[in-house]
Amino acid sequence: MLPSEQARRDFRAGKSVTTSNIANGFVQGNLAILPEKLAGAFHRFCQLNPKPCPIIGMSEVGDPRIPALGLDLDIRTDVPRYRVWRDGEIVDEPTDIMAHWRDDLVAFVLGCSFSFEEALMEDGISLRHIEHKVRVPMYRTNVACTSSGPFEGPLVVSMRPLKPADAIRAVQITSRYPAVHGAPVHLGHPQSIGIKDIGKPDYGDPVPIAADEIPVFWACGVTPQAVIANAKVPFAITHSPGLMLVTDLRNKQFAVI
Amino acid sequence: MLPSEQARRDFRAGKSVTTSNIANGFVQGNLAILPEKLAGAFHRFCQLNPKPCPIIGMSEVGDPRIPALGLDLDIRTDVPRYRVWRDGEIVDEPTDIMAHWRDDLVAFVLGCSFSFEEALMEDGISLRHIEHKVRVPMYRTNVACTSSGPFEGPLVVSMRPLKPADAIRAVQITSRYPAVHGAPVHLGHPQSIGIKDIGKPDYGDPVPIAADEIPVFWACGVTPQAVIANAKVPFAITHSPGLMLVTDLRNKQFAVI
Repeated sequence: MLPSEQARRDFRAGKSVTTSNIANGFVQGNLAILPEKLAGAFHRFCQLNPKPCPIIGMSEVGDPRIPALGLDLDIRTDVPRYRVWRDGEIVDEPTDIMAHWRDDLVAFVLGCSFSFEEALMEDGISLRHIEHKVRVPMYRTNVACTSSGPFEGPLVVSMRPLKPADAIRAVQITSRYPAVHGAPVHLGHPQSIGIKDIGKPDYGDPVPIAADEIPVFWACGVTPQAVIANAKVPFAITHSPGLMLVTDLRNKQFAVI
Repeated sequence: MLPSEQARRDFRAGKSVTTSNIANGFVQGNLAILPEKLAGAFHRFCQLNPKPCPIIGMSEVGDPRIPALGLDLDIRTDVPRYRVWRDGEIVDEPTDIMAHWRDDLVAFVLGCSFSFEEALMEDGISLRHIEHKVRVPMYRTNVACTSSGPFEGPLVVSMRPLKPADAIRAVQITSRYPAVHGAPVHLGHPQSIGIKDIGKPDYGDPVPIAADEIPVFWACGVTPQAVIANAKVPFAITHSPGLMLVTDLRNKQFAVI
């Protein structure tokens, strides 16, 4: 059995832990589940904002399976923890959504930076938040996503401090992975994208930046969750941050060349 | 005025010619217009088959504008010639679709190989069908697209014969352009993808292949049109092959690195 299949079985049985360092080498995804009535506008939002919202899998209406991501995958049970949203508020954080599932729901799975971080580390680039065993720092920017129906809001970015030569190499490496956020969206001047205090991230934890390093920013999968919260839609389900969907795809499969 | 804007104005005024060699440097697109009822399944088809169906623009429901592709663009008038489909048959080939437009229509614009051909030629790679002033040869393969609702059918590919070193370089160059079909899907063995006679293309014109060349195959934008015809949907509108939508985007903007 693949380590990714074992992980999903564990989660299906009720285990609920962060998926960091689980099934290394396998693609993890952000989850967004919406009623069919809202799914078209959300799909279009992802289409229009592919850097923060790269779709790597999508269910049929009412079908909890996404065989392309895992033959036995059941989106109602296989994520370690969910968030159930009503009118923009979290109303439940269950370990399965059997009680919340409906015949009109569509599940979207969006790429996650864990995939490109693996490629960076395999290339010998050290990542500060991993050295320090904290969450990556994330920031709301002054860059507006292109809106679609009720879905609108700022681009959220993650930041990794790198030496300039590593930053250039990181641009090359992550450009190979457009399905998991791709190349950085910014580097060097946080204030240019509306970040006032790099020491105070809006999500995650702060990390130190050395004098000979520059901050490098990537579009972040928190963006769609922030946008869903902001839209105050009547009903939505997402994963709980850091407790992702583990798929049977391999990170290396996402390299375009 | 941009040459692309001038071209659209000419087409809006009734001019109806092939867009090959028109507004060089600007992105041209394949057009598919469907009623909202079918648009979700078609959007998902494109999502699931991004190599033949890379979406570069999409309208709001009932809105004939796509400002991201051209501020003044009107999808009802700006394509040189359209095909109106009913139940899988072409029932009209007008130069505008004012009489066919409805409030429930959604327009999809899909990337086209003209963009990556420009990048290849700028790199000094000569393309046989352009040397011979004929249409690129295209073939139905035995590779099935992933289906979505009524939309299903084989991947259609275009073929360009190249010397091996040029083929390798062409893989590198076109990998930079995932929004316009990206890297080749096959090279060297036409029979492996179900092509029995390379001298008899299913669409376009045959071109000679020299003894020191290999055929290189790219996913082709004819795929969605073949799929729409095959689905026999009650109503759809496409462009007429070779008479594309000319946009104000530049081909170079589509390079990912």
